Amino acid sequence: MTALDRFAFVLFSPKSSGNVGAAARALKNMRLGDLRLVAPRDYDPRAAAAMAVHAGDVLDRARIFPDLAAALDDRTLIVGTTCRVGPYRSETRALREAAPALVGESAANRVAIVFGPEDFGLTNLEIARCHRLITIPTAPDYPSLNLAQAVIVVAYELMLAAGAARTPASIGQFASAGDVEAMHHRMAEALVAIGFLPAENPDHLMLTLRAMLGRSGVRPRELEILNGIARQVRWVAEDGAATLAAKRASGRKLR
Amino acid sequence: MTALDRFAFVLFSPKSSGNVGAAARALKNMRLGDLRLVAPRDYDPRAAAAMAVHAGDVLDRARIFPDLAAALDDRTLIVGTTCRVGPYRSETRALREAAPALVGESAANRVAIVFGPEDFGLTNLEIARCHRLITIPTAPDYPSLNLAQAVIVVAYELMLAAGAARTPASIGQFASAGDVEAMHHRMAEALVAIGFLPAENPDHLMLTLRAMLGRSGVRPRELEILNGIARQVRWVAEDGAATLAAKRASGRKLR
Repeated sequence: MTALDRFAFVLFSPKSSGNVGAAARALKNMRLGDLRLVAPRDYDPRAAAAMAVHAGDVLDRARIFPDLAAALDDRTLIVGTTCRVGPYRSETRALREAAPALVGESAANRVAIVFGPEDFGLTNLEIARCHRLITIPTAPDYPSLNLAQAVIVVAYELMLAAGAARTPASIGQFASAGDVEAMHHRMAEALVAIGFLPAENPDHLMLTLRAMLGRSGVRPRELEILNGIARQVRWVAEDGAATLAAKRASGRKLR
Repeated sequence: MTALDRFAFVLFSPKSSGNVGAAARALKNMRLGDLRLVAPRDYDPRAAAAMAVHAGDVLDRARIFPDLAAALDDRTLIVGTTCRVGPYRSETRALREAAPALVGESAANRVAIVFGPEDFGLTNLEIARCHRLITIPTAPDYPSLNLAQAVIVVAYELMLAAGAARTPASIGQFASAGDVEAMHHRMAEALVAIGFLPAENPDHLMLTLRAMLGRSGVRPRELEILNGIARQVRWVAEDGAATLAAKRASGRKLR
């Protein structure tokens, strides 16, 4: 039983079955799974399944309730979502600051996050049942999110607050400083050999190249390639050019 | 010109026009507005507009490009999104840690955030064009997000990182400590008057009531109501009961 298992997502009177399916997918993406529907309108299980994609299990387990009281019956902490401001909504907290507190409270509570209908959100009647109100920060001129998108943003914040996120992809190892230094020397010698850098003071321009590669960080495989280029450039400059010319000449003869 | 104006969201070969519309809405929700489509498949402007709702302006301004190179032509910092791990993806950063850095870099750059097609994401060919890779943390067994949902989560993080979020609803003022204290005294006297609290030691049970109201915080309007209840309870206990009984009796006679 993790903290996230103690969260239920309650969709109050959703209008779009596609949104219900997309919400199921969002929950599974974010390690949540308790989806509850209150009096969904014109519910079409096939349209919902199409949007759920690989979260069909979450959708199959979703329970449908006739009213909000029934959906919340076993819950001890009710959290409403709103993008509106009003006399009964002045304790609304921004999602990011609220999420860690809710995860903390879930240690002793079964939590419901309640989302209103697509067309008008939660009314003051439903808001009155909520212990906490949260809002997703948005642009001031367009605060109304698509229902399933509101679900994924809340689910994402709860999962991060619960510390339950997948470890991001492993970070690649860079080449050692000594190997990179040797490559820079090799490259400078090659650039001197072709007359691009002055032999008496090659370092000035090399600083810029160093800065560029320093920012990107050089990986061992990339270092091999840079060393190979430096060696080849120097070879061509010192005695390889004649060899190459001879090769090209013999190639032309053969054709 | 804000930091967010320097971000373009590029959808590479999207399959669902509904997703394109939902992405436009998500951008407008999060104060972004530069949407670019690369070779969208079976693009249906009407289906897109239905999902864009009040973000029709963002959708109308969206530009369609024949290939990724054209869409990125004016951009200086290319950021790919991926949920896959692989040899060319090992520098992938989690979105939350990457977002503030990207907003910082946007001060000197025109940034593109590139999203792959719904069915297989960005391939190594597109990834090779990216200076940075970001991933949205998810459940390990279902890392693949709906395209428009990935868009809103990234847009949300960028908006918060840019400090451009709408100030959350104003927080209501609580009643002053002195007024709350006076109410507690009044309530204790009333509860003593009805024999619920012992007159010699009313404080013990009052501590529990104080803790409860302390947690919720009492607003001035709520305080008035609690004071009114306390006064009425005391009145009934002390001499109001007889008055009430007389009233009820006379009411019965009249009927």
